[in-house]
Amino acid sequence: MEKIKVGILNVSGYAGVELARLLVCHPGVQLVSVTGRSTAGKKLAEVFPHLAGLTELVIESELSDVDFAFAAMPHKESAPEVIKLIERGTKVVDISADFRLSNPADYDEWYGFTHPSPELLDKAVYGLPELYRKDIAGADLVANPGCYPTGAILAMAPAVKYGIAEDDIIIDSKSGLSGAGRTLTIGTHYAEANEDTTAYALKGHRHMPEIAQELSFLGEEVVNVTFVPHLVPMTRGILSTCYARLRDEFVTKEDMQAEITALYKDFYKNEPFVKVVDAPPHSKNTWGSNICHVYPFIDSRTGRLIVVSSIDNLIKGASGQAIQNMNIMSGFAEVTGLDSPPIYP
Amino acid sequence: MEKIKVGILNVSGYAGVELARLLVCHPGVQLVSVTGRSTAGKKLAEVFPHLAGLTELVIESELSDVDFAFAAMPHKESAPEVIKLIERGTKVVDISADFRLSNPADYDEWYGFTHPSPELLDKAVYGLPELYRKDIAGADLVANPGCYPTGAILAMAPAVKYGIAEDDIIIDSKSGLSGAGRTLTIGTHYAEANEDTTAYALKGHRHMPEIAQELSFLGEEVVNVTFVPHLVPMTRGILSTCYARLRDEFVTKEDMQAEITALYKDFYKNEPFVKVVDAPPHSKNTWGSNICHVYPFIDSRTGRLIVVSSIDNLIKGASGQAIQNMNIMSGFAEVTGLDSPPIYP
Amino acid sequence: MEKIKVGILNVSGYAGVELARLLVCHPGVQLVSVTGRSTAGKKLAEVFPHLAGLTELVIESELSDVDFAFAAMPHKESAPEVIKLIERGTKVVDISADFRLSNPADYDEWYGFTHPSPELLDKAVYGLPELYRKDIAGADLVANPGCYPTGAILAMAPAVKYGIAEDDIIIDSKSGLSGAGRTLTIGTHYAEANEDTTAYALKGHRHMPEIAQELSFLGEEVVNVTFVPHLVPMTRGILSTCYARLRDEFVTKEDMQAEITALYKDFYKNEPFVKVVDAPPHSKNTWGSNICHVYPFIDSRTGRLIVVSSIDNLIKGASGQAIQNMNIMSGFAEVTGLDSPPIYP
Amino acid sequence: MEKIKVGILNVSGYAGVELARLLVCHPGVQLVSVTGRSTAGKKLAEVFPHLAGLTELVIESELSDVDFAFAAMPHKESAPEVIKLIERGTKVVDISADFRLSNPADYDEWYGFTHPSPELLDKAVYGLPELYRKDIAGADLVANPGCYPTGAILAMAPAVKYGIAEDDIIIDSKSGLSGAGRTLTIGTHYAEANEDTTAYALKGHRHMPEIAQELSFLGEEVVNVTFVPHLVPMTRGILSTCYARLRDEFVTKEDMQAEITALYKDFYKNEPFVKVVDAPPHSKNTWGSNICHVYPFIDSRTGRLIVVSSIDNLIKGASGQAIQNMNIMSGFAEVTGLDSPPIYP
Repeated sequence: MEKIKVGILNVSGYAGVELARLLVCHPGVQLVSVTGRSTAGKKLAEVFPHLAGLTELVIESELSDVDFAFAAMPHKESAPEVIKLIERGTKVVDISADFRLSNPADYDEWYGFTHPSPELLDKAVYGLPELYRKDIAGADLVANPGCYPTGAILAMAPAVKYGIAEDDIIIDSKSGLSGAGRTLTIGTHYAEANEDTTAYALKGHRHMPEIAQELSFLGEEVVNVTFVPHLVPMTRGILSTCYARLRDEFVTKEDMQAEITALYKDFYKNEPFVKVVDAPPHSKNTWGSNICHVYPFIDSRTGRLIVVSSIDNLIKGASGQAIQNMNIMSGFAEVTGLDSPPIYP
Repeated sequence: MEKIKVGILNVSGYAGVELARLLVCHPGVQLVSVTGRSTAGKKLAEVFPHLAGLTELVIESELSDVDFAFAAMPHKESAPEVIKLIERGTKVVDISADFRLSNPADYDEWYGFTHPSPELLDKAVYGLPELYRKDIAGADLVANPGCYPTGAILAMAPAVKYGIAEDDIIIDSKSGLSGAGRTLTIGTHYAEANEDTTAYALKGHRHMPEIAQELSFLGEEVVNVTFVPHLVPMTRGILSTCYARLRDEFVTKEDMQAEITALYKDFYKNEPFVKVVDAPPHSKNTWGSNICHVYPFIDSRTGRLIVVSSIDNLIKGASGQAIQNMNIMSGFAEVTGLDSPPIYP
Repeated sequence: MEKIKVGILNVSGYAGVELARLLVCHPGVQLVSVTGRSTAGKKLAEVFPHLAGLTELVIESELSDVDFAFAAMPHKESAPEVIKLIERGTKVVDISADFRLSNPADYDEWYGFTHPSPELLDKAVYGLPELYRKDIAGADLVANPGCYPTGAILAMAPAVKYGIAEDDIIIDSKSGLSGAGRTLTIGTHYAEANEDTTAYALKGHRHMPEIAQELSFLGEEVVNVTFVPHLVPMTRGILSTCYARLRDEFVTKEDMQAEITALYKDFYKNEPFVKVVDAPPHSKNTWGSNICHVYPFIDSRTGRLIVVSSIDNLIKGASGQAIQNMNIMSGFAEVTGLDSPPIYP
Repeated sequence: MEKIKVGILNVSGYAGVELARLLVCHPGVQLVSVTGRSTAGKKLAEVFPHLAGLTELVIESELSDVDFAFAAMPHKESAPEVIKLIERGTKVVDISADFRLSNPADYDEWYGFTHPSPELLDKAVYGLPELYRKDIAGADLVANPGCYPTGAILAMAPAVKYGIAEDDIIIDSKSGLSGAGRTLTIGTHYAEANEDTTAYALKGHRHMPEIAQELSFLGEEVVNVTFVPHLVPMTRGILSTCYARLRDEFVTKEDMQAEITALYKDFYKNEPFVKVVDAPPHSKNTWGSNICHVYPFIDSRTGRLIVVSSIDNLIKGASGQAIQNMNIMSGFAEVTGLDSPPIYP
C-alpha cells in the first residue's frame, strides 16, 4: 500500500514535535512537510536533536502538498489555515480548539474571536474516538479534544451516559508542565515551577465549556461543571479526580462498587486505549503512551462517585489521539503507530 | 530568662529532625535530649549532616530530663510515652495522632487500637492555635494537628463558622513526598515517585475523621467530608483545594467575592501565620516557613465556594506548628523561632 | 519465521522490567517466561501496571524452557544461573557484572567473591556491539556492559584507539536514580534524592575496572582511569564528561576540533545507535531510546580533550543493549525492536 | 545601635530577591529601597508573594538614599551605577562581575566591554571572606564572587596555597537552574530542563578566568583551569568536583588522606561558614544556608586529589555571601542574619 503523505502545521510546539516523533515511526504514512515560524529554514532534527537520524526534513514556512494535515497552531490562528486545507480537499485533524465547541457563540465568549466558518464548525467532528468513532471515520475535519477534556470526559462518560451521577460535577485536574506549552512564561520557568503546586484559572478555563458540552451531549440534561486545573512539577501527565453525587436510584444498589466497576468495564470493553483499573492510577502508568487509565470509586460513606483518570497529556491528550483519529479517517487499524507501551519508571 | 530544656522523642523521622533544626535556633529553649531507635549512640549531626556545627547532641535511647517534650513517634507508640511524660509533670506537644480525636472509639475504628487513656485524651487540646489559642495556653498536653487537617481546616474554618457553605465538603489535597515520612516504601522510592502524580487512600485516610471532627465543632451541624489525598513529585508542601456549595442565603449577596474575601480577612486578621491572599497560592510561597496562605473564591456560575490553601507540611503542618504551640504553652511570643520567611525560588 | 522463545531471570528490577517492556513489542521473539522472587505467582501486569493489556504472563520462581535467556540478577547470584543455562545449551545475555571482567582475580578484588567458572568467563564476550560485533555474533554468552561503562567507553574509544589522548583519563558521570536500582535505600528515597546532587564511591566504584579494562584493550598501554559517579535528581539518563590530555603529536594539528570531530564521525559512521553530535548533548536527547550521543571537544587553551556522552541508562546502558546483543546473536537486524525515538520533552 | 539603611539595585532577579529575603530578617539593617525595571511601582510583596507580610516596600526605579547598597544588576550595566554610588560615598557590594577581574583587559576579552573605571577596579576587593577578610573590612567596594568560583575556590584554595597539587586543575560543576537566573530562556523552561542534565559553555565560561585568577594569586604559579559547568534538574545548589594531580613531594607522604584532611581542617578552622566534611557532600546539605561543605579526597591509585564542594548558589554563591561581606564592612558579627541552618529534606 502506498504511504499517505502527511504534514504538520506548526511543528515547533510540543504537540507539533510530538506528532513528528510519532509520525516518523508510523508505517502507513510519510511525513513530507512540516512548518514553523521562527524556525523555518532549519533542519527539524537540528531544532529538535532527539530526532537526529530519524528525519532529514527542513522546516518550511508554508505546508507543501499533502494528503492529510495536522494543524498544531494556536487557537484563532488555526481556523483560517484549516479552512484553506479543507477547501483544497485535504483532510485535517485540528489540534487547536477552533472546531471543538459546537456553538459558534462560545468562541466569542471563551476565546475572544468570532468564528470564521460556522458551517465548517457544524461539519467538524469532535475527535474522541471512544464516543464518536463512526462519525470520525467519515469526517474530513476532526477537532482533536483538549488535554484536560480527554481525561475528564473519559472519566465521567459512563457515569453520565448511564445516569449514575447527578449532573453537577467537580473536576480537579493535575497537569505536568508540558501542558502549558513551549512558549516561555514565568510560570513555566524551571526554578518557579519546580517544587511547586498551584491551582490556576479558577475564574474559568477554556476547557470547561468543552467538558460541559460533551458531558451534556451524553446525558439527558445540561451538566454543570466546576473545573479547577493545577500544575504539578512533572513534564508529562494529567491526573483528573472527578467528584459527583450518586443519584438516589443508584445508591440503593447492593454492591455499588462492583456495579460501577462492571458498568465502566463494559462501557470500555472494546476500547484499545482505555483501561478500567482496580486501583487509583498513577500518571506514570500511562506516560509515553496513548493509553488512558480510569478508576471509578464509590465513597459509600458520603454517597459520592469519585473517578480518577490518567493520561499522557501530549499523547492521548494531544498528538497520539490525533493520530488515532487519522488512523480511523484513513482506514488504518486504529492502533497503528501507537503501540509503544508506557515507559516506567 | 533561663532557657527551657526541651527534648524530642524520635528525632530520626522528618518531623523529628525538623523540630531539631528549628529548636537549635530558638532563642528561648535549649535542646538537651533527642532519642532515636536505630540511630541511638550516634551524633545527631553525623546522621543529619545539615546540622553539622549546630549541635553536639548524641542521640539517646531514652529521653533525659527535660521541661518540655515533643513526641514525634508513630501513632499508637506515642501514647504510652506521652502518658509517662505527663505523669512526670512534663508538658508535651504530641505530633502523632494519638490525642487528636476526641472520641476514644475513633481510635478503634481508624487506627486499630484501643486508646490507653481516654481521661488524658479528654484533657488534651487540639493544637490549632487559630482555633484554640486560649485552651492551648493552659494545656499540659497538646495534640498537634495532622498535616492535611491543618491546611484543610484553615481553608474551610471561616466558611463553616459563618455558615456560608453547605455541610458537605470535598477536599482534594496534593502533598509532597516528605509527608509520607522517612520510612522506605516503594511508593516513595525516587524513580517511582518522580514524574508521577497519584491519588491514594480513597477508601478512607486517617486524616478525614480529624478534619470532619474539627469542622463539625465549628459549625452547627455534622460536616460531611470527602477527602482525597494525592502525592505530587516535590519534597515539601501541601496544596488543598476545597469545594462546597454555597448556602442559598449567601448566594443572594450582591458581590459574593468581595464579601467572602472580607469575611476571611476578618477571621484571620490577628493571625501571625495565616495570610488571606488575592490569587491562587503556590505551595512554594509558603515553602520553608510556618505560614499558611488561604485563597477563597466564589464560582458564581455554579454557586460553589472553592478555597485553596498552601502550607509547608513539615512546618505549619508539623514541627513549626508544634513549636508555635510550645510558644503559647510556655509564654513565649507566638512567633519566636518561627520567623524565617518562605524560601523562594 | 517462527518466533524465538525468550525468558527473563529476575523481572522485578528496573533492568528486568524494562527488558519485558521492550520484548513484548519485539517482532522476532515471544516472551514466554519471567521469574521473580518475592513477586512469584503474581501477574506481571499487576506488579507493573504500565504493562496492563500487553502481557498475560505470571511471574514464576523458575525459568521455564526458553531458546534465549536474559539474566537480570544481582552480581554473584547471576553466575550460577547463567552457568546452568549455558550448560543446557541456552544462549544468554547476562546483565549482571559476572562475566564482564576478563581477569578472574578482579572478582575477588572488586566484587568480593571467587568466580565460579573462569573457563566460561574466558568464553564470554563483552557485549558492546560497537567494539565486539563479530565476537558477539558467534557467542553463546554475552556479558552486557554496565551503564556507566557504556557511556564512558563510547565517549573515549576513538580517542584511545587512535592514540589522540594520554592514557590517564578522568570520567565524571552524572546518573539518574533508576541506575541505583529498585531496591529501597535511604539514598534513593524521594525526599532525600530530590533537589540533591552528590558524588559517591570515590574510594572505588565497580565500574572503574570495567572501563579501564576496555579502554586498555583498545589502546597500546594500560589506561589509568579516575572515575567519579554522581547522582542527579532525574529518573533516567547518564551524562559522562571525560577529560584527557591531548598527546603532543596531536596538539600540533592545525584545526584540532575539525580533526577530532572527523575522526569520531568516521569511527562511528556505520553505527545505528551512536551519533556524534555538534553541541554538548542533553541526557534528555537520548531518553527512552537505545541511542548514545557523543560530543568530542578540544579545549585548545589547556590542551585537553573533553568528551561528553549521553545515554538512557536503562536502555543503551542495560536492557536495550541486551536486546541489541540478542539481535546480533540471533541473526535479527540489529535495530529490531529498538527503533523508538527518544521521547522529548 | 541605629540600623544601617540598605538598598538593593535590581531586586527582581533571583539574587536581588534573595537579598531582600535575607535583609528583612537582618537585625542590624533596615531595607529602605529596592529598584526594578519592569516591576517599578509595584509592591515588592505583590511581585514576590513569599514576602507577603514581611515588607511594605514599593519597587522604585531609582535607589533612594541609603548607607549601603547591593548591586544585583547584569554585568556591564552594574559598573556605571556602582561608580555613582561610590562617588556619593555609599559603600557597595556588587554582585555582578564588573569588579571581580583585576586585569581590565579581561573585561574586553571575556565580557565584551571596556571597563569604565580601571581605578575603581583596582580599589575593589574580591569578596571571598575566607581569603580577603581584612581587605574587605576596609573596603568601600567589594566585588562579590560568582557562584561557581565560590565553590571551586573554596574547594581548591588549601591545596593550591600549600602546593599540594599541580597547577593544572579540572573543575566539573553541577548547578541547579536558579543559577541561570530569572530571565526566560528555552534552556530554563521547565519541560526542557526537568529530567535533563547537560554540559554547557565548553568553549569558555566567564567564571573560568575568575577561578584561575584567584587560584593563581594563592599559589606561586599561574594555575591552568579547565572548567565545565553543567545544569542538573534542581532549583538550588552547586556541587563542584575538582581534579588535580598531586605533586611528587606530597605523594611520598605516608597517610596522604589523613594529611590532606588535617591540612584542610586547619585552613578553615576559624571559618564560620566552611565545614570540612568526612564524606562526599550532598548539595542538599547546604541548601538554604550560607554554609559550604568541602571534602578533600586522595585517589592514591591514580595519584590524584579530588575535592568536592557544595554550596547553595543563591546564598553562599551570591546573596548570603554579599551580606557576609556587608557584615564585615559594617562591623557586624560576620554571621549576623546568616544563621539559618540548611533545610532538609
